[in-house]
Amino acid sequence: MANYQHILLAIDTSEHHQQVCDKAASLAQQHQATLSICHLVENYLASDFAYEGINNVTVEMQDDLLNNAKARIKTHAAMLNIPQERCWVEFGNPRYDVVRLADEHKVDLIIVGSHGRHGLQLLLGSTANAVLHHAKCDVLAVRLNN
Amino acid sequence: MANYQHILLAIDTSEHHQQVCDKAASLAQQHQATLSICHLVENYLASDFAYEGINNVTVEMQDDLLNNAKARIKTHAAMLNIPQERCWVEFGNPRYDVVRLADEHKVDLIIVGSHGRHGLQLLLGSTANAVLHHAKCDVLAVRLNN
Repeated sequence: MANYQHILLAIDTSEHHQQVCDKAASLAQQHQATLSICHLVENYLASDFAYEGINNVTVEMQDDLLNNAKARIKTHAAMLNIPQERCWVEFGNPRYDVVRLADEHKVDLIIVGSHGRHGLQLLLGSTANAVLHHAKCDVLAVRLNN
Repeated sequence: MANYQHILLAIDTSEHHQQVCDKAASLAQQHQATLSICHLVENYLASDFAYEGINNVTVEMQDDLLNNAKARIKTHAAMLNIPQERCWVEFGNPRYDVVRLADEHKVDLIIVGSHGRHGLQLLLGSTANAVLHHAKCDVLAVRLNN
């Protein structure tokens, strides 16, 4: 039977984390797979894109963003019994760095939360969409209740 | 444990059917889920889009397309032990009718094959992409070897 060996749960900024966490925990158990978790924090200082209204971001503010994210994701990791070495919270672009992390750690299934998107949102795309198109492994999009 | 109850395998025109079929069979077995299969055949006659070069499609040619698709998908269904009543091959738009079929039959996981897409392909989107954004349930994109 084609079991998944290493599942990567990619957490975004959504408030629906618990729903995706529960699903990831179930699947990891069913497949007896290693479960890892990642969260990418946008680095506004390093970005060459002019973020209107947030061009006064300081190094301290960026560090706060990262530290807050680390604290939040650590809580989820603890609930999922994921050890610290498989809990990756770092600066990066969720669209590409989720796939990079998956490649580096030989992940064979990425789990992402997915909201329904319509109109302009569809055109702009989403993390789930980017991961789907760039991943070299399978991708499970867990439908979140809007 | 959050098991999937009804899995819908949505087959497209790719030649990589076997890869997706094997994955669907494994998952259905693991989840002890009902497995259904669908394939949508584009109806060029009903479309309001002017298909360049294929505007001489006749009713007979359309029927041939559908019958050929039915024969092909029937072979896959038989290998997967899917009975005829859960093997849906019909005219429609794969982008929307996969989701409609999933809704109608209370599917909680849609499995689609996914090719990597870049550049213009990304912009044009794919069935996997459309299903991801419109589905009201989870979507597993099985990565196909290009």
